[in-house]
Amino acid sequence: MTRIDLPRTDVGPCESFGERWTKLAAERSALCLGVAPSSSWLARWDLTDDVRGAAAYCDRILRAATGVAAVKVQVPFFARFGPEGLDLLARFTERCHEHGSLVVMDAKVGDADDTMHAYADLYLGPGSRLGGDAVTANAYMGLRSIHPLAVRAGQVGAAVLVLVRTSNHAAEEVQQASSTDDRTVAQRLADDVAAWNHAQAPDASWGPFGAVVGARLPESADLVARLPRCVVEVPGLGRPDRATAEVLAAVPDGRGDALLTITSGVLRHGPDVGALRTALEAWRERIRP
Amino acid sequence: MTRIDLPRTDVGPCESFGERWTKLAAERSALCLGVAPSSSWLARWDLTDDVRGAAAYCDRILRAATGVAAVKVQVPFFARFGPEGLDLLARFTERCHEHGSLVVMDAKVGDADDTMHAYADLYLGPGSRLGGDAVTANAYMGLRSIHPLAVRAGQVGAAVLVLVRTSNHAAEEVQQASSTDDRTVAQRLADDVAAWNHAQAPDASWGPFGAVVGARLPESADLVARLPRCVVEVPGLGRPDRATAEVLAAVPDGRGDALLTITSGVLRHGPDVGALRTALEAWRERIRP
Repeated sequence: MTRIDLPRTDVGPCESFGERWTKLAAERSALCLGVAPSSSWLARWDLTDDVRGAAAYCDRILRAATGVAAVKVQVPFFARFGPEGLDLLARFTERCHEHGSLVVMDAKVGDADDTMHAYADLYLGPGSRLGGDAVTANAYMGLRSIHPLAVRAGQVGAAVLVLVRTSNHAAEEVQQASSTDDRTVAQRLADDVAAWNHAQAPDASWGPFGAVVGARLPESADLVARLPRCVVEVPGLGRPDRATAEVLAAVPDGRGDALLTITSGVLRHGPDVGALRTALEAWRERIRP
Repeated sequence: MTRIDLPRTDVGPCESFGERWTKLAAERSALCLGVAPSSSWLARWDLTDDVRGAAAYCDRILRAATGVAAVKVQVPFFARFGPEGLDLLARFTERCHEHGSLVVMDAKVGDADDTMHAYADLYLGPGSRLGGDAVTANAYMGLRSIHPLAVRAGQVGAAVLVLVRTSNHAAEEVQQASSTDDRTVAQRLADDVAAWNHAQAPDASWGPFGAVVGARLPESADLVARLPRCVVEVPGLGRPDRATAEVLAAVPDGRGDALLTITSGVLRHGPDVGALRTALEAWRERIRP
């Protein structure tokens, strides 16, 4: 039997999320805008607490944020409106894509087996219901339970951002517990994310796993260092209780794959579209290396 | 000013989930039927992998399971169909309620702050979008991050079932890590769930927190013992890789607030409604104390 040698190629079926993100971040800055149509934000912007109010909220953000590299949508604030909320989220995502922004679905999914395929069908890639570019995930059931989601993410150029360390105080009881070998749960998770990515993409491009690391020094810098060639989302920029220097210190200079999320720091300047845009521009300049 | 003394009453605005569940379990048995319209289940039942197929799947289950005390719906298998999937889930829940069954929303939610209110608006109680009686939750961000959801659950007679220990192997790396004082993360979580419930309901009725404890001995028996007066869901009944005796051994005799979930053990007898009903009846008899 003749063995047919196909030409070897390192180009996958689509560009990875890591490649897409680093290019875009270099062009537009690493700023990601958080989008949270919660009851309290709608009230502050003088909008009704229903799907119409949420749509108006999204519309203002879109008009202000045309040049932003990424938006992170907090899925429960859409899902709380039921089917209409998911419709709004799908439309909002489409419009973000028209502006060239990537969309991170902050849904913190965590489960096992087939549910991971269900989450991929819902959240990840152009063929999914919501069309996101990345989804956040929770590894309480073990990182291996999320592998199938990361595999699917890799196939469509999307990413799974695993919650490694969150900055809320309550999180310590789980995330700072001791793993078998003197590392914390968060440290072990970071190492496992990096190892799995490296095994998937040994040519040092980005694997489909990324991470979420809350900005609290010195832990955040240690964890980020354990995650080479992973897109690391660092939330908390612009929060009144968090120094900007502390957030930025989590990410070393020249690390082009960090994703720095700001929510209230920009949104509190709304609902005026011009004021939102000015605030966003100022933050973009501020974090540019 | 005259102070009006209202008659003191120990009756809350509504009966707690724990009270509702123990009564129903005593009447109907503690069996809970898992509902998972995944691609693979729809294929096995010769149904199309779309929302119509899922609706037909739900319809068969409803016809077979009119007398079951509770159903546990795996939310991602509905949500994967987008808005139409949520619509189907809301209708399915309504029909389960018409049969007097309680509905557990298996969504494994975990987040902080306002998102917990969003999850309550979506999942918990008659005023919510999906109208569930309980929702599963993930405490990777710390149990305190879920407190607001439990408070809301208590107000509407619903429950939050916290994943304490899951039976998948990958889960050990997080759930068996050592907390500060020689307890595992899972043990500490169980103790904290019980303590919080007790503080909410010191009269020894059920608080709004429950727990999910995967059936693996000896851990499961230890964890269940740490959770007095908590509704404890034990999944895994009828799975080919799990002995029924092991699942039942997790729950001591006479503990009326356990919730024993069976999924494939019943569903593999489908799609014939009569065969499903027969399998369900047989399992009900089998677990009756």
